[in-house]
Amino acid sequence: MKLTEIKGGVCAAKGFRAAGMHCGIRKNTSKKDIALIVADAPCAAAGVYTQNKVFAAPVGVTRAHLANGYAQAVICNSGNANTCNSDGYAKAEATCKAVAEELGISPDDVIVASTGVIGVPLPLEPILSAIRPLKHALWNDEEAGDAAATAIMTTDTKKKEFSYSFELCGKTVSLGGICKGSGMIEPNMATMLGFITTDVAITPDLLQKALRYAISDTFNMVSVDRDTSTNDMVTVLASGCAGNALIDAEGEAYETFKSALFLLCRSMAMAIAADGEGATRLLECTVSGVATHEDAKVLAKSVIRSSLVKAAMFGADANWGRILCALGYAGVDMDPDRVDVSFRSCEGSIPVCVDGRGIPFDEDIAKKILTQKIIYIDVDMKSGADYATAWGCDLTYEYVKINGDYRS
Amino acid sequence: MKLTEIKGGVCAAKGFRAAGMHCGIRKNTSKKDIALIVADAPCAAAGVYTQNKVFAAPVGVTRAHLANGYAQAVICNSGNANTCNSDGYAKAEATCKAVAEELGISPDDVIVASTGVIGVPLPLEPILSAIRPLKHALWNDEEAGDAAATAIMTTDTKKKEFSYSFELCGKTVSLGGICKGSGMIEPNMATMLGFITTDVAITPDLLQKALRYAISDTFNMVSVDRDTSTNDMVTVLASGCAGNALIDAEGEAYETFKSALFLLCRSMAMAIAADGEGATRLLECTVSGVATHEDAKVLAKSVIRSSLVKAAMFGADANWGRILCALGYAGVDMDPDRVDVSFRSCEGSIPVCVDGRGIPFDEDIAKKILTQKIIYIDVDMKSGADYATAWGCDLTYEYVKINGDYRS
Repeated sequence: MKLTEIKGGVCAAKGFRAAGMHCGIRKNTSKKDIALIVADAPCAAAGVYTQNKVFAAPVGVTRAHLANGYAQAVICNSGNANTCNSDGYAKAEATCKAVAEELGISPDDVIVASTGVIGVPLPLEPILSAIRPLKHALWNDEEAGDAAATAIMTTDTKKKEFSYSFELCGKTVSLGGICKGSGMIEPNMATMLGFITTDVAITPDLLQKALRYAISDTFNMVSVDRDTSTNDMVTVLASGCAGNALIDAEGEAYETFKSALFLLCRSMAMAIAADGEGATRLLECTVSGVATHEDAKVLAKSVIRSSLVKAAMFGADANWGRILCALGYAGVDMDPDRVDVSFRSCEGSIPVCVDGRGIPFDEDIAKKILTQKIIYIDVDMKSGADYATAWGCDLTYEYVKINGDYRS
Repeated sequence: MKLTEIKGGVCAAKGFRAAGMHCGIRKNTSKKDIALIVADAPCAAAGVYTQNKVFAAPVGVTRAHLANGYAQAVICNSGNANTCNSDGYAKAEATCKAVAEELGISPDDVIVASTGVIGVPLPLEPILSAIRPLKHALWNDEEAGDAAATAIMTTDTKKKEFSYSFELCGKTVSLGGICKGSGMIEPNMATMLGFITTDVAITPDLLQKALRYAISDTFNMVSVDRDTSTNDMVTVLASGCAGNALIDAEGEAYETFKSALFLLCRSMAMAIAADGEGATRLLECTVSGVATHEDAKVLAKSVIRSSLVKAAMFGADANWGRILCALGYAGVDMDPDRVDVSFRSCEGSIPVCVDGRGIPFDEDIAKKILTQKIIYIDVDMKSGADYATAWGCDLTYEYVKINGDYRS
């Protein structure tokens, strides 16, 4: 399958319009804080949600609304998580109802999401007042997609949107997504906020199955700070406007779409890791030579999560002992005496550990490799044929600064 | 049981002498880097070790030496972990052999430990040269205990030694311990380095049992950075010099000693948390109202481990939503709608969350409470009668600085 990068984000697929604006949840009027995505007709829809036992009201409401496999609109505010509030469900439902009335659709077909500070009552009035202006601003071009991508950002420093097209049985299918996430990032069978649209024709069941597959090795392999958020969700709407024969069984067409969705999710997940709070470098750790894919995932994620590895990468310090340490406490069987480690970047590659022992290496070359923006940590366990990749970022002064006083 | 604080550290109990000096593993000649603790005769001995699959050579050697339940000496260097080195075992055994020859004891009765950077070959010559001078420096007073406590420090900013006495069946029993640990702290059925001496008379089996009990709710409830070290161990030597009737069965005498050992371990564990790398505050989180002690431990540790909670405490920010979030992803069943949270310090106490919802509170008072040196996070789940306490520290710029360039 050949994937072509296209413009438009959530507006790239046929049948979708989007808008984003400032409604007043944030004091800073120059920061958009509400996004609306609308499909021309009800779509097959799927979602995955945070596994945190303390979950946001909009997570509960969206899960209920998507139970029937269909939806037509997404409303998302930033600046307030609507979590741990006694009136959270009522406000999330009121938001869906207002959107539905304005668009002339069913409240059950509205996906609602919130992100921001936990435990502060959600101001409903600004949201309700924004729904009509948002509807009037809905458009299906790149600028509209950008506005929605910007409106869902919190501590993100970059908007995160991707869109691609590919061929499916003679038809061109497009898909695109926006996401946000920078801190409180440790997805667990769920993820941070992500909204995906596609014009593929597919049944809700297979859409859900494809989404679960795509999430598992992408969003769920990202960690910024090991804190699984209360508000994580990723949803996908499929309008069917591409005109392909409905995908209603597994087979070549399903596999093609699933691969495209996987690659989109991977781009989105990597963007979140690269923009982790305070990050100066994107870390990608691939652990190969493992007996099972599940064990490889556990090992790769253990390296990416380690505060000590993250701090060493900030300091461009080739302290590979911390990588061995993180592999050793990951909780899976491993033979320390077979482990090879090397560091890689656009400046080249340098092996630092062979068979679990340090080997002499040029510290100046290591420094040059490690001072780049994207660092690859390659680990070979030499004990099997499977592998997995995880993404994260370095641990910096800025992370501490951002999180030492987030509420102010 | 009444525990009285006494002086002497590992020299407080009868039958032990200690020494510490600079031998040359560290370049800085003013920093002691090797410690020796010697008992007058073979002692009942017990140990617990890191569960990291990548473990240091001295951990493997000590485990083998303590298999018979007896030991007479402890040799420990700082500045090099002797981990992930191909000649690590040979050098750890050579160290034990040299100590044994100098003292006229069996190499099997020597406990060996190392702490410092991973993956750098251990320089053996400075250690071998230091053994005779260390033997000549052995003494049984407070100064000797201090020297040993200082010699095992790495990034620790304070030496950590405690000693107590208590009455047991008409005899005065003493026990004392030294420990080190500041970063790479996330004990798991094991702990950082700790060496305990006591003059109680007890069988090796019961000594091991008492040590496991004491560790479980003390050292194993500390986390600085979630990185379970490759070198963790705690050992205890019991000389029997107190003259009590040998404790060879569970009963009142065993329970009394076990309680004393628990309290010593708790003091040591709290000192490690308070001196976590870069820490400005000690955090103590007690989660009560839980159905089982195990669940309470998981919940308390989840709060203490959270980077976001730690950063908020650094910023004296009463961001209780992050505590709810950490409870929610801890992995145990919980009802978010019953959770109460309050912050407490020497400046008073302030409830911030009741029944899982935020309540209005005075931010100035919260700030005053949270800017103290010791912060208590009190969580009541209102779902049972059990509780547990965990200790940690805040996440600061200094942690990032220390770990961004540890090897240099």
